[in-house]
Amino acid sequence: VIARGERWPERWCHRFKSADPCFSCASQSPEPPTSPAPSVYPRLSYSARLPFCRNSAARALLKVVDRKKSNLCLSADVTTKEQLLRLAEQAGPHICLLKTHMDILSDFDATVPAALLALSEKHDFLLFEDRKFADIGSTVAAQYSGGVYRIASWSHIVNAHAIAGPGILAGLKQPVEKQLKESNVEGSTVAPRGLLLIAEMSSSGSLATGSYTTANLLMAEADPEWVCGFICQRAISKEKGMIHMSPGVQLPTDEDAVAPAAAASSSSFPSTPARTGTDSLGQQYTSPRDLLVTHGTDIIIVGRAIIQAKDAAKECERYRKAGWEAYEESLAASDAKK
Amino acid sequence: VIARGERWPERWCHRFKSADPCFSCASQSPEPPTSPAPSVYPRLSYSARLPFCRNSAARALLKVVDRKKSNLCLSADVTTKEQLLRLAEQAGPHICLLKTHMDILSDFDATVPAALLALSEKHDFLLFEDRKFADIGSTVAAQYSGGVYRIASWSHIVNAHAIAGPGILAGLKQPVEKQLKESNVEGSTVAPRGLLLIAEMSSSGSLATGSYTTANLLMAEADPEWVCGFICQRAISKEKGMIHMSPGVQLPTDEDAVAPAAAASSSSFPSTPARTGTDSLGQQYTSPRDLLVTHGTDIIIVGRAIIQAKDAAKECERYRKAGWEAYEESLAASDAKK
Repeated sequence: VIARGERWPERWCHRFKSADPCFSCASQSPEPPTSPAPSVYPRLSYSARLPFCRNSAARALLKVVDRKKSNLCLSADVTTKEQLLRLAEQAGPHICLLKTHMDILSDFDATVPAALLALSEKHDFLLFEDRKFADIGSTVAAQYSGGVYRIASWSHIVNAHAIAGPGILAGLKQPVEKQLKESNVEGSTVAPRGLLLIAEMSSSGSLATGSYTTANLLMAEADPEWVCGFICQRAISKEKGMIHMSPGVQLPTDEDAVAPAAAASSSSFPSTPARTGTDSLGQQYTSPRDLLVTHGTDIIIVGRAIIQAKDAAKECERYRKAGWEAYEESLAASDAKK
Repeated sequence: VIARGERWPERWCHRFKSADPCFSCASQSPEPPTSPAPSVYPRLSYSARLPFCRNSAARALLKVVDRKKSNLCLSADVTTKEQLLRLAEQAGPHICLLKTHMDILSDFDATVPAALLALSEKHDFLLFEDRKFADIGSTVAAQYSGGVYRIASWSHIVNAHAIAGPGILAGLKQPVEKQLKESNVEGSTVAPRGLLLIAEMSSSGSLATGSYTTANLLMAEADPEWVCGFICQRAISKEKGMIHMSPGVQLPTDEDAVAPAAAASSSSFPSTPARTGTDSLGQQYTSPRDLLVTHGTDIIIVGRAIIQAKDAAKECERYRKAGWEAYEESLAASDAKK
């Protein structure tokens, strides 16, 4: 903690080795970030991890991943319902999960979630509204279940920043427990629901690092029936039932830039993935291989690379294949270590 | 940073003096939190701070506060447009700012922002959509300007978690700069727009502490033309143009619980306000006096205490009076120190 008005007196920015203030380092400990190498291996197959999943959405998702041989989540950041539904139809056969931002659709109406649910059944994928809840418990409960979006009624997975403290997990759980209670009365089944905590972000200067990330880990592992995993840039939980999803994915234009053998057999894991690109507002990109093989995550989240492609379905398939090959390589690397 | 699977080895929870893991302490440094006392004094009047405001919404807000002798922001957490507009009409004469959650209105439509803007002109208050943006730059730009809410077109003030890094400030600024550019062409004036960073939260176990809060301070002070202030529990910036707004306010039922003389003249400032209550999902409440006099904040944000009152207008006036008396007491305490 720095006194008011002081500006990093006699303190270094660790990451950039500069004496200038750095937003990112401000969230880290005074010591250089010597985070221990996460032990990515041994690595289990998706299906072998199923029995360890205590959350319904985690189980449902791993089943889809296994059935479709796809660990690809499409981030459908488009601004009209026509674009969204067309994209979901094109991408559907290739993805395990469709990530949406309902609140950027200029013409949203109640038919959109219904149409997405129909497509999710037709093509066998789950829905993930990327709402990034970040308020106190009573407010997120209302935002999740109510409003015009009624997210709890259709989205299998949602995510939250744990910034407000554990009350946000409890608040989001309320509508789900209510649904569960009502279904017990009627004897019907309840669709899977799960929460991802945003333990790390892919953007430049993110404050979700160090002890912030650790606090997310503790909160998630304290409630494995409700939390299905993390948004992160590397595997952070040893719990086999927790799913690690990584945004900011782009296939490098020069595939040779990463030497497979060196990366897979390396004993020192860099604490952040190698970057393959950026945008003008701080987003940073990484390859599927770097995330799955080197950093042990499970699901790749791809947005603009697919949406801006001429043939979205073809580009989806290219990413599905790259993600699955990275997964198989990670299993082979794990076997080789035995 | 703690190794995977380890649980606070040989480490104490500082706050609760326990060896059990604690979500809140996880976000703090290993040392006990000995944050230096913020120098709340000398304190300037709202009007004397006007020349220091570089952001248009900060200026507009301080003018309203001064005109109406009200530092009260009403948090209008209701779920229908009829409730919202009735509340805005009742509270309007007593408040400087109306805080909304459009995404919990079950019957939201485009008439709501228009009606709120009309009420804001009629009763002289500003609008603050409590969206808590928390995504990467390109996404928040779309969420702020687009979707069904089109927040940038009507809300004078919005807020964000800086968790994603500085890109979130740049992303949110894009729609505002676009409005500004278009207005220059047409020669018209632009309504005030400003951003609050959520540097601290009032909920239990919040991770917005220590170096996270400091990083918010650095980002805000790096862009005072766009950032108008902070959501916080105490004054954190020395910049006179930055406005400190504090949620989680309730008047204590026993007014004698805080001894005025002791609190105002104390030389040691507790790092968190004294609590006057809680809810079942981790929210914690504080008195206006504790926030303004002891911790030097500027605007009190009151929600349930007013909404759940039988006579909302009367309760508003009670809080306005308490907030203004606390402000006058803080000025008197400042003068006494000269």
